[in-house]
Amino acid sequence: MITRMSSLFLRTLRDDPADAEVPSHKLLVRAGYVRRVAPGVYSWLPLGLRVLNKVENVVRREMNAIGAQELSFPALLPKEHYETTGRWEDYGDALFRLKDRKGGDYVLGPTHEELFTSTVKAECSSYKDFPIILYQIQTKYRDEERPRAGILRGREFVMKDSYSFNMVDEGLEESYQLHRGAYRRIFDTLGVEYVICAATSGAMGGSASEEFLAIADNGEDTFVRSTESDYAANVEAVVTHPPAALPITGQAEATEHHTPDCTTIEALVEWANREGIAVRGRDVTAADTLKCVIVRITEPGTDDEGNPHRPTLAGVLVPGNREVAMKRLEAALVPATVELADDKDFARNPFLVKGYVGPRALAEHGLQVLADPHVFEGSAWITGADKPEHHMVGMVAGRDFTPDRVVEAAEVLEGDPAPDGKGTLTLARGIEIGHIFQLGRKYTEAFEVYIPDESGKRTVPTMGSYGIGVSRLVAVLAEQMHDEVGLRWPATVAPYDVHVVIANKDEAATTAASELVEKLSDAGLDVLYDDRPKVSPGVKFKDSELLGMPLIVVVGRGFSERKVELRNRFTGEKLDVAYEEAVATVQKALQEL
Amino acid sequence: MITRMSSLFLRTLRDDPADAEVPSHKLLVRAGYVRRVAPGVYSWLPLGLRVLNKVENVVRREMNAIGAQELSFPALLPKEHYETTGRWEDYGDALFRLKDRKGGDYVLGPTHEELFTSTVKAECSSYKDFPIILYQIQTKYRDEERPRAGILRGREFVMKDSYSFNMVDEGLEESYQLHRGAYRRIFDTLGVEYVICAATSGAMGGSASEEFLAIADNGEDTFVRSTESDYAANVEAVVTHPPAALPITGQAEATEHHTPDCTTIEALVEWANREGIAVRGRDVTAADTLKCVIVRITEPGTDDEGNPHRPTLAGVLVPGNREVAMKRLEAALVPATVELADDKDFARNPFLVKGYVGPRALAEHGLQVLADPHVFEGSAWITGADKPEHHMVGMVAGRDFTPDRVVEAAEVLEGDPAPDGKGTLTLARGIEIGHIFQLGRKYTEAFEVYIPDESGKRTVPTMGSYGIGVSRLVAVLAEQMHDEVGLRWPATVAPYDVHVVIANKDEAATTAASELVEKLSDAGLDVLYDDRPKVSPGVKFKDSELLGMPLIVVVGRGFSERKVELRNRFTGEKLDVAYEEAVATVQKALQEL
Repeated sequence: MITRMSSLFLRTLRDDPADAEVPSHKLLVRAGYVRRVAPGVYSWLPLGLRVLNKVENVVRREMNAIGAQELSFPALLPKEHYETTGRWEDYGDALFRLKDRKGGDYVLGPTHEELFTSTVKAECSSYKDFPIILYQIQTKYRDEERPRAGILRGREFVMKDSYSFNMVDEGLEESYQLHRGAYRRIFDTLGVEYVICAATSGAMGGSASEEFLAIADNGEDTFVRSTESDYAANVEAVVTHPPAALPITGQAEATEHHTPDCTTIEALVEWANREGIAVRGRDVTAADTLKCVIVRITEPGTDDEGNPHRPTLAGVLVPGNREVAMKRLEAALVPATVELADDKDFARNPFLVKGYVGPRALAEHGLQVLADPHVFEGSAWITGADKPEHHMVGMVAGRDFTPDRVVEAAEVLEGDPAPDGKGTLTLARGIEIGHIFQLGRKYTEAFEVYIPDESGKRTVPTMGSYGIGVSRLVAVLAEQMHDEVGLRWPATVAPYDVHVVIANKDEAATTAASELVEKLSDAGLDVLYDDRPKVSPGVKFKDSELLGMPLIVVVGRGFSERKVELRNRFTGEKLDVAYEEAVATVQKALQEL
Repeated sequence: MITRMSSLFLRTLRDDPADAEVPSHKLLVRAGYVRRVAPGVYSWLPLGLRVLNKVENVVRREMNAIGAQELSFPALLPKEHYETTGRWEDYGDALFRLKDRKGGDYVLGPTHEELFTSTVKAECSSYKDFPIILYQIQTKYRDEERPRAGILRGREFVMKDSYSFNMVDEGLEESYQLHRGAYRRIFDTLGVEYVICAATSGAMGGSASEEFLAIADNGEDTFVRSTESDYAANVEAVVTHPPAALPITGQAEATEHHTPDCTTIEALVEWANREGIAVRGRDVTAADTLKCVIVRITEPGTDDEGNPHRPTLAGVLVPGNREVAMKRLEAALVPATVELADDKDFARNPFLVKGYVGPRALAEHGLQVLADPHVFEGSAWITGADKPEHHMVGMVAGRDFTPDRVVEAAEVLEGDPAPDGKGTLTLARGIEIGHIFQLGRKYTEAFEVYIPDESGKRTVPTMGSYGIGVSRLVAVLAEQMHDEVGLRWPATVAPYDVHVVIANKDEAATTAASELVEKLSDAGLDVLYDDRPKVSPGVKFKDSELLGMPLIVVVGRGFSERKVELRNRFTGEKLDVAYEEAVATVQKALQEL
């Protein structure tokens, strides 16, 4: 197949779009792959659509290979389904809601658990209908608060979502592993650099869950991995293994000290070392101090009288060298939401002495005390004394204060021991490209899916939910594979296999280029042919770099010696090839990409 | 490729769905191709999705062949685009409107003239960028007042819409003809029985326009065709050629008659013939009487003070043997809307004597008089005398009354002369499957698309707009090709090429069937294999008829003599074939379909 640039609907731009911050966004717009229509809403121009379709096909092939069956649900969905599961409310502002001419309430589907579950309920009646894996590749809608980075986080986007239904839990594990394998093959085929991260299940409910994160400095998600094993996890999912409890007996009594101007950890550590206070024979560090952070926790839903739950205050204890990681804390307290307490909270509770809060006052005044696992039994701390300009030294957990609950609340730091006991953790950023999830029976129970099992017993099937951000993957590939001059597409998804540039005005060269293009097409290749008569070679070269086909063939000056130049967009390598051998050389180079 | 029915996500239904009236709707639901989610909103289950995709691919191939370039616009569109063209208002309740979290107004795109035009404006800057044909195959949304017949008229549906942009009018004609050819090839490939009808341009503006109508008794559109030529037209577009004017001199004076109880045409004709009134020496028929129908015409938009235009009353003159065809009248008066006057209108205007309205009173009281072309100059009529129980005889057009305007207002009748002068018209019903349209500069002017032509002159490109109802075509094929027992798919779009049914419990037969299925698949065919172990042959046969693959192979009793049966779903023909020759015979039969 041949596309001639003289008639291609394409305009490349010299300048980055004003609203673009990340390279993929800049380049996809500059190269004419996508165009912005509204915040987070994009058009796919011809080249972009070709990449999107190719990504879809890679996904489709691997889904079919695990026996998943493709169908397609509407995007316009009646409210009822989302009321059944409570997500009409839970989704909040992220749901696009609308009314039809008769006043009926509808949503634009943000994800389709509801439709799949109710359809399985309607179509299936026997254990023999299971297991099932169903999927669709479909346009979804989420009214993101901050759509960003072009198609990386859009409000209208293409997703592959699939759902497994099994009569027994072991079946769910099997469907989950099938997906895990398919996802690995998909991302490997596309050449994405990614990690599989243990994830928390968040608001979705359910148990096991892993995220596939493409590694990218611009990523929104932080993850950790071990220096010495395959361990990788979303920071929310990192589990801290505290040391064994220390004996309390024999530890010195806690003592109160006057500590003026010690409202920061740094000042406190400096004071302690100035005073000669030592911990197990060494200088005090920030890790020996205890931060006592006051937060406001709100449970979702309403109380018995139908009013939203009021927030309650709690104290969170973390070592002084770590911040409270709000996302980790929230993941631990799901489905509640957590915010930092504000000045009004302190004003209303004068026993909270700002800068000098300690665990004792909390307990005395009935506030819940949540401790990070680092604050383990027998550990001793320098902490606030609950009065201005005073701190306590030698406050021992389990003796001088006792947490109500241990939760993962502290940030994960580079160098922390890996939870699997092998090596230490490094921090990196990534973009979520896939998520697999053992959902359990939350949705099948909500929709009352009852299926008689082999013995006739009424059984609720268990469900898995699995997603791939298909349109996002186009941005991720651009993000990971571009260089300073433009896009670079792997052969699997490049809009065209090869880009032929005519850069010689000689009539014989022009004829030869056209013939070469025909021959490449006859050999089954998709060819982009820059035949624009009045465009300079320099502009053509720049465009070919920007557009990013993996191979570029230049019919240029060398044609006087019947040579063409083969450029590899990834390696930058340039090779002179005899015109007669050009087709074979291109085919070979494509296989080697 | 092989799909086994033992694991296929499919439930066939014995009964027609309660809300289904037309065969395609009943069968597509019963055969498990689609499922209703909300009025006019359907899910595509695996078999249905396969047909939809195949139809899409036929469309895509022919669009690419005329040099059209595929892209994809969002469905979620900001209000601004539709305000520029006034369609935010004009579309009325048919537009799905919604707000995002920030209060911004959006629509779900019902058709994309706006997006294509503004994109061409943004991307094109030179006459060298033209001509362009762009298209997409995309999900569209229209809040139909009466969604009907399943996917035949849905609220969420798939359309191919394309748009041509040309610098000169001759180019538009060329792009139009390219589409006309592509559409013919598409519908011919699919095997649809259709006519190309001259159409009015309706509210879209523009000039030449043709509709592709699939012939179907259940169709919503009435069209006419000639008994002796290729002429076909939407009834709205039928042009009446009146006879030459008759001489007025020499015609008898009009006379007033007492006509009690003659408030119907039948009674009036009976009275006339009883009185011995003759027309050119023959008995009076209904065609000699003149109906004077009062209508209310409302112009769109607002008056100078911003109020909606008030309706004005007018009289419409048609021969007594024809009804006023409101759609034809409205097409003639576009963009105004037309309704019949009601009792209040008569009460307010006592000069309108119900049952005895004639053209004279209208003129005297300043009402506009609209005459159908059948009411031509010199024609004489029996008509109301504008007082109770009285009619006039011999009222001559051009002498006793003069229409203000001639408009196509009367219904077209079977047997009317064809407008092309060849043969007479027959009436039939159809379903619109395609529409091609020389739109002109309405949208390019609204978006101020100015392109310098070769001489540098600022030029507004002219546009064509072309649509195919892709999801509707699935229903149309079902509608035209089904029989009393089920669906019948042409090989081009059938979900599978062949349906293999095992109807013999013998182990050797089962093994042979499985091997046959593998061989068919190896030969490149898509095979649906009914391997369900506990389902009776009778049920399997019924399902195979319902599902409608073009060829069915039964491995049944005959296998004891190593024979299988090949059934042709279209002809009903059954053929015994030696097992060893089955693959070759199926391949041959497929080619001959």
